[in-house]
Amino acid sequence: MSRPLRIALLGHRFMGRAHSNAWSQVSRFFDLPVHPVLQVACGRDVQALQEFAHRWGWAGIETDWRRVLERDDVDIVDIALPQHLHAEVAIAAAQAGKHVFCEKPLAMTLGEGRAMVDAAEASGIVHYVNHNYRLAPAVVLARQLIDEGRIGEIRHWRGAYQQSWLVDPAFPLNWKLRQATAYAGPQWDLNSHNVDLALHLVGDITHVSCLTRTFIPERPLEEDPARSGPVEVEDAALMMADFACGAVGSFEATRFALGRRNRHTFEIYGSKGALSWDLEDMNRLQFFSEDDPPQARGFRNLLATERIHRYAKNWWPPGHIIGYEHTFVHAVADFLTAVATGGPARPDFRDGLRVLEILEAGLRSAASGRKCAVP
Amino acid sequence: MSRPLRIALLGHRFMGRAHSNAWSQVSRFFDLPVHPVLQVACGRDVQALQEFAHRWGWAGIETDWRRVLERDDVDIVDIALPQHLHAEVAIAAAQAGKHVFCEKPLAMTLGEGRAMVDAAEASGIVHYVNHNYRLAPAVVLARQLIDEGRIGEIRHWRGAYQQSWLVDPAFPLNWKLRQATAYAGPQWDLNSHNVDLALHLVGDITHVSCLTRTFIPERPLEEDPARSGPVEVEDAALMMADFACGAVGSFEATRFALGRRNRHTFEIYGSKGALSWDLEDMNRLQFFSEDDPPQARGFRNLLATERIHRYAKNWWPPGHIIGYEHTFVHAVADFLTAVATGGPARPDFRDGLRVLEILEAGLRSAASGRKCAVP
Amino acid sequence: MSRPLRIALLGHRFMGRAHSNAWSQVSRFFDLPVHPVLQVACGRDVQALQEFAHRWGWAGIETDWRRVLERDDVDIVDIALPQHLHAEVAIAAAQAGKHVFCEKPLAMTLGEGRAMVDAAEASGIVHYVNHNYRLAPAVVLARQLIDEGRIGEIRHWRGAYQQSWLVDPAFPLNWKLRQATAYAGPQWDLNSHNVDLALHLVGDITHVSCLTRTFIPERPLEEDPARSGPVEVEDAALMMADFACGAVGSFEATRFALGRRNRHTFEIYGSKGALSWDLEDMNRLQFFSEDDPPQARGFRNLLATERIHRYAKNWWPPGHIIGYEHTFVHAVADFLTAVATGGPARPDFRDGLRVLEILEAGLRSAASGRKCAVP
Amino acid sequence: MSRPLRIALLGHRFMGRAHSNAWSQVSRFFDLPVHPVLQVACGRDVQALQEFAHRWGWAGIETDWRRVLERDDVDIVDIALPQHLHAEVAIAAAQAGKHVFCEKPLAMTLGEGRAMVDAAEASGIVHYVNHNYRLAPAVVLARQLIDEGRIGEIRHWRGAYQQSWLVDPAFPLNWKLRQATAYAGPQWDLNSHNVDLALHLVGDITHVSCLTRTFIPERPLEEDPARSGPVEVEDAALMMADFACGAVGSFEATRFALGRRNRHTFEIYGSKGALSWDLEDMNRLQFFSEDDPPQARGFRNLLATERIHRYAKNWWPPGHIIGYEHTFVHAVADFLTAVATGGPARPDFRDGLRVLEILEAGLRSAASGRKCAVP
Repeated sequence: MSRPLRIALLGHRFMGRAHSNAWSQVSRFFDLPVHPVLQVACGRDVQALQEFAHRWGWAGIETDWRRVLERDDVDIVDIALPQHLHAEVAIAAAQAGKHVFCEKPLAMTLGEGRAMVDAAEASGIVHYVNHNYRLAPAVVLARQLIDEGRIGEIRHWRGAYQQSWLVDPAFPLNWKLRQATAYAGPQWDLNSHNVDLALHLVGDITHVSCLTRTFIPERPLEEDPARSGPVEVEDAALMMADFACGAVGSFEATRFALGRRNRHTFEIYGSKGALSWDLEDMNRLQFFSEDDPPQARGFRNLLATERIHRYAKNWWPPGHIIGYEHTFVHAVADFLTAVATGGPARPDFRDGLRVLEILEAGLRSAASGRKCAVP
Repeated sequence: MSRPLRIALLGHRFMGRAHSNAWSQVSRFFDLPVHPVLQVACGRDVQALQEFAHRWGWAGIETDWRRVLERDDVDIVDIALPQHLHAEVAIAAAQAGKHVFCEKPLAMTLGEGRAMVDAAEASGIVHYVNHNYRLAPAVVLARQLIDEGRIGEIRHWRGAYQQSWLVDPAFPLNWKLRQATAYAGPQWDLNSHNVDLALHLVGDITHVSCLTRTFIPERPLEEDPARSGPVEVEDAALMMADFACGAVGSFEATRFALGRRNRHTFEIYGSKGALSWDLEDMNRLQFFSEDDPPQARGFRNLLATERIHRYAKNWWPPGHIIGYEHTFVHAVADFLTAVATGGPARPDFRDGLRVLEILEAGLRSAASGRKCAVP
Repeated sequence: MSRPLRIALLGHRFMGRAHSNAWSQVSRFFDLPVHPVLQVACGRDVQALQEFAHRWGWAGIETDWRRVLERDDVDIVDIALPQHLHAEVAIAAAQAGKHVFCEKPLAMTLGEGRAMVDAAEASGIVHYVNHNYRLAPAVVLARQLIDEGRIGEIRHWRGAYQQSWLVDPAFPLNWKLRQATAYAGPQWDLNSHNVDLALHLVGDITHVSCLTRTFIPERPLEEDPARSGPVEVEDAALMMADFACGAVGSFEATRFALGRRNRHTFEIYGSKGALSWDLEDMNRLQFFSEDDPPQARGFRNLLATERIHRYAKNWWPPGHIIGYEHTFVHAVADFLTAVATGGPARPDFRDGLRVLEILEAGLRSAASGRKCAVP
Repeated sequence: MSRPLRIALLGHRFMGRAHSNAWSQVSRFFDLPVHPVLQVACGRDVQALQEFAHRWGWAGIETDWRRVLERDDVDIVDIALPQHLHAEVAIAAAQAGKHVFCEKPLAMTLGEGRAMVDAAEASGIVHYVNHNYRLAPAVVLARQLIDEGRIGEIRHWRGAYQQSWLVDPAFPLNWKLRQATAYAGPQWDLNSHNVDLALHLVGDITHVSCLTRTFIPERPLEEDPARSGPVEVEDAALMMADFACGAVGSFEATRFALGRRNRHTFEIYGSKGALSWDLEDMNRLQFFSEDDPPQARGFRNLLATERIHRYAKNWWPPGHIIGYEHTFVHAVADFLTAVATGGPARPDFRDGLRVLEILEAGLRSAASGRKCAVP
C-alpha cells in the first residue's frame, strides 16, 4: 500500500487548475510509493475557492495561507501563485517543515531567491521549482540522447519562447506588466523556461548580453480603460550567452510574435549530432546524427511515445500523444518520489535561483549595454 | 447543483483506462447539468479489477455483467470490451433501460449491429458509439469549416490509418488476428475510424471496391510460441468509394506501415477549399482557402487551441495542446449532455451500424473482385 | 574531346522549352563522352518557331517533321509533342535510324505503344521515354536505399498526383479534355508518372481496380466560350493494385485538388524501413529505418544534395537545391550516355508501354466495376 | 532586336560557374531590352580556364584582369572572386567605365568598401552587389507582402545562417579561415546575407551587440596536413540589433551546425502578420495574417510559383519549383535591365557597404563586450 502525502494548494487560477489536475492524475498513471491526498486549497475569493475545491476534490479550504502552514495534516505546500507571493510563503512553509512544490519563476529578485534556498536547505525539506518543460516527452528524450553521448560536445543553443498576446494595444495593463507584481516581462516569464532548459541540457552560463524593448509604452488601465498607464516591463528580451562548456547560445522571449501562441523552441548543435524541439508539438524531437550513413543523414522526426521513452509507458500505446498538462503530472511524480525516498528532487530552488541569476545579469546588461558576467 | 449519473464500466484494459479517465476528468473541465459517478467496474480477473477500481476510484466491482444490469444504482453502461462482446451486452443493457456508451467498432456483424440499433431504439435509451476522433480538436474545427461553407462542394476524400505493430513475424497470433474475436483486421479496427470520419465530414457512401491482403499468413500461438497458426484476418485493407454527394474517396488501413505508430490522416478537397489532418498531430488542421488573395494562397497550419474553438476553452490557454485521451473526455461530455437533456447523441448506434455496412460491403468486394453497392 | 550528337526537337511549347534547356545545360554540368548539338527545331507556327529557335540556340528550323527525318545531319529525334502525335513520328524516326527521346505518356493506345516498341527494337536505335521524375534527386536516392536493402521487402505503395487547374467550371474544353487528342485524363497524364515510379521502385503490377469520375461534365469551348461541349475524359482516377512481389498499392490522380498545384507524392513501406516523397519538395526524401536505435526511430528528412548522391555532385555544394527542369538534364545525360556507349537507356519504350498497359487495365476496370488482370 | 552587352567574367570556381550559368540562361527565360554576350573569362590557371571557357561558351580568355579592363569590347565586368580581390578590381573597372556586377560580401574592410562606392558613383556606372537571396522566389514574395502592408509595423527579425562544414577538426586551414584572404568568418560570409535580407525587408540598423567564438583554434595546413596553424577568424557569430524603425533583431551565423548544410532562415513579426522562410526550401514562404477569421488563423504555406509572383511566370507552370542558381538569373536580369535603362540597380555598392558597416560594428562589439552604434 502506498503512503498518503497530504497536499495544500495555494492558488486556484490557471496554475491552480494545472496543479490540481496533476495531483489528481498522478496516482492513476504512475506507481509510486506514496499517493497525494488533496487536503486543502487556499485562496482569498471564498466563493470561487469553494467551487474550485468541489470541482477538483480538495477536502477543505483555507483563506489564510498562514493557517495552512499551521496545520498538522499538511505534508506538502504547493505554491501556484504569481511570483511576487512566492518567497514569503515558501520560506515560511520550509520553516514549518513542509515540503514545497513552487511555480516558476522562483521569485522576484535574487535576494528573495537566495532566502528561499537558504530556508529550504536549512530546514531539510524537499523543494522543487516547477520548470515543467524539462518533463515534456521530447525534452526528456533530448536529455537522454545527450547523456548517451549522441550529440557530442555541444557548441550551440538557439532558443526562443514566443507568444502574441500583447500585440493588441488595447490589451490592458494587467499584473504581468507592472514591476511590483511581475518584476520583469518575458525575460522573467518566458526566458526563465528558456534558460532553465539550456541549463538542463547544455550546462551553466558564465556571461550574457541582453537587449530589451517595450514596443507599446502605455496601455489602458484594467480598472478604468478610459485611462492609461505606463507599461513597466519589457515586451521582448533577446539575450546572447557564453556557456561554461564553451558553447554559445541565444535566447529570445517575446509577447509580440503574431502567429505564435505558445511556441517554445530550441536547437542544439554538437560535435556529433543535433536536436530541435517545439513546445507546440511537444511530443516530437528532431534528431540529427553524424553516425548515420553519409547518404542517409538528416533530421529524424522522433515521436516520444514509445514504451522505451521515460514516462511514456505510463500513458498510452505508441503514437498516442499527450498534452500540455501531462508535464505537470511528470513533475509531481518526480517530486513525490523524492519526498518518499528522502532524496533530492530536480529542478530544486537552487536550480530556480540559478535561472534568476542569469536573467538578472541579462537585465543589467540590457541597462548598461555591456556584456555581464553571471556571478 | 448538477445531477449525478451512475456509471458501470465493463472492461479494464486499454479502453477501460481511457474511459475511466474520461469519466473522472469530464466534470473538472466541463460544466454539465449532470456529473458522472464511478459506480462499478466489471471484469473477470478479480485481482486486477480490484487494483483497477482502486486506482480509478470506482466505488465497487462486479465480475458478472448480468449482475451489473440488474442493479438499480446504475444509469449508464459503458462497454469498453472487444467487439465480439458488444452486441449481447448492449442489447441486454438497453432492455434493462440503461443508457449505453459503447466502444467502436459497434459490433462483429451487420446482424449484431442491427439488433443493437433495434434494441436501443425500442428502449428509448441514449446510445453512443465511441468514434472518438470526431472529437479531436482539429476534426471538430474541420467540421466547423465545412459547415461554414469554406470548402464548398466536396470532391475528394483521401484517408489512411496506418500502424506498424505486425511487421515483426514473431508477433503472436492474438485475439485481433482471429475471426472469432475480431471478425476482421484493420478493415474493422482502423477503417472503422476512417469511414466514420468520412461519413461525418463528407456524407454517405453508396459503392465501394476493396482489396485486402494478409502479408504473413502464419504466426506463433500466444499459448505456445513454438507452434504457429493461421492469421485469419487481413493485414491491410484498401478501399475506393463513391459518395452520395458525388465525391470519390480512398481509404487505407494497415498494420504494416513502419514508421507510422498511429497515423490517421485525411485530405478533403472541395470546390472552394481543402483540409488535411494527422492524428499524430491532432491539435492541428491544414486549411486551404481559394478565397485568399491569389498571391497568398496556401495551406494554413491551424492550431485548434483558441477559445473560439469548440471544447478548447475548457482546457488551457491558446497554444497549449491536448492529448489523445482528451477526445474521450469530449465524447463523454457530449454523451452526458444528451442523457441529461433527453436529446440524441451522435455518433449513435445507427451511425456505428452504417460504418459496418460500408466495411462489410468492402469485404464482399475484396472477396469478389467487384465493386459493391452499400445496401 | 567529346563527340557531337545532333538533335532535332519536335515541339516548342512547355515541353519544348524544358527539353531545349536540358540539351543546352547538360554539357555544362555533366562530363559526357558526347555533347548535344541543337541542330534543328521543328514546328508549324513559323514565326513562333523562329523566335523559339533563336532564343534557345537551335541552328535551324523545319516545319515538316518528315523533312527532319530525312536529314543526314540529325542523330537524335526529341519528341516534345502531345501524346496523339507520338506514335507516327517515333515509328518513322526509328525507321529512319534516328535515336528517339520521347515525352510521356508514351502513346494514346496500347496498339500505338506496341508499334513504337516494335519499330524501335527492330531498328536497333536507343529509345527513351521521359518519365523524368525517376531522376528527381530524392527519387534517385529512394532507389538507391531500396537497392541497398534498407527498406526490405516492400508491402505498400501509396501514391498520389494532385493538381487543381480544373476546379474552375469556366476553364475551357482544351485538348487535354478530349479523347481524340488526350485519350484519357489524369489517368494518362498524371497516373502515368505515378505508375512509372511504382514500377521503378517496387516492381511489376499484376491486377488493378479503378474508379474514375468526371465532376464537371460540360465546359466552355475554347473557340467559342458562349457555347459548351462535353468533357470526354475523367477528372479524377483512383486505382488499387496488386504488385507481383506481394505488395499492394494505391494511386490517385486528380485535377481537382485545391491547394495542390503539382503535388506528386508517394509512401513506400517495407519490412525494414519506409520512404516518402513529395515532388513540390523534390530534393528531400523521408526515410525511416528499423535499424535505428529503438529510442531514436523516426522519419529522417534527407536533403539529396550531398556529393555522395548521384547527379548531385554535378550541380552545387551541399544544401543548394535544384529545380524542376534539372530532372530533364539528368534524363538527357542518361540518354546521351546510352547513345554514346551503345547501351540501352531506361526507361525505354518498353517501360513506357508497360505503364500504358497498367493504365489501360485501370480504364477497363473503371468501366466494368471489376478488378482486372494486367496482361 | 535586343542590344548585346559584352560580359567579362573574373573567376571560374563555384561562383564563376553560377555566374556563367546566369549569363547563359537569362535571355532564354527573360525578355530584356539587352542580351549578354559571354565575351571573355579571366583567370590565372590557363588550362582550367580554357576548359571552363569552352564549357560555358565564353568567346575568349584572359589571364590578367588589367588586360580585360583595357578591352573596348567589354561592357560589364563580373567579379566572381574572393572578397580580398574585389576592391582593386572593382575600382579599376569603374574607372575604366565598365559596369560592375560584384559578388558579396562587397569587400574586406570599410575603407575598401567606401572606395568602391566612391569610384562607382564618380564614374556613373551601374554597380551591383550580388546579395542574391533577395531574389529567391519566396523572399521576393515576402517583400511584396510587406510592401502591401500585410505584416504591419515590424517588431522582430530573427535570422540565422547555419552551415556545418567546419565540424570536422581535420578540415584544413583554407583561405576562408585566414584574415588576409577572408577578413572574418561567418560574420562576413554568412551574416552578410542575413543582414542584407534584414535591411531589405525591415530597414536600417542603428546598434548591434555581437558575440563571436572560435571553437577549434588550430587546423591542419592545406599545404602540409602534418602541421597545423591558427584559425584566424571566428567559427560562429551571434548578433543582436536595434532597427531604426523600432524593431529588434537577432542574427546567427555558424559553420558548426550539424544537420544544416546551407540553412538560411528568417522570421519576421509585425503588428498585423508574420513571415518565415528557409533557404533550403526557398520556393516557400510561411505567412500569418491577423486579418484571417479568428477560427482559421495560422501560418500559410505559400509556394511562390504562381504566375502572379514576380519572376515565377518566366519559369515553369505553378507548382514546379526552381533551384539555387535561379536566384543568380534573377539578379543578372535586374542588373541588365538597369544597364539597359540607365537606371540604378539594387542592391548596389552602397547597399553592400551598409552591410559591411553593420558587420564591422558587430566585430567591434564582440571585441569590446559593448553594444556599438553603427556609424
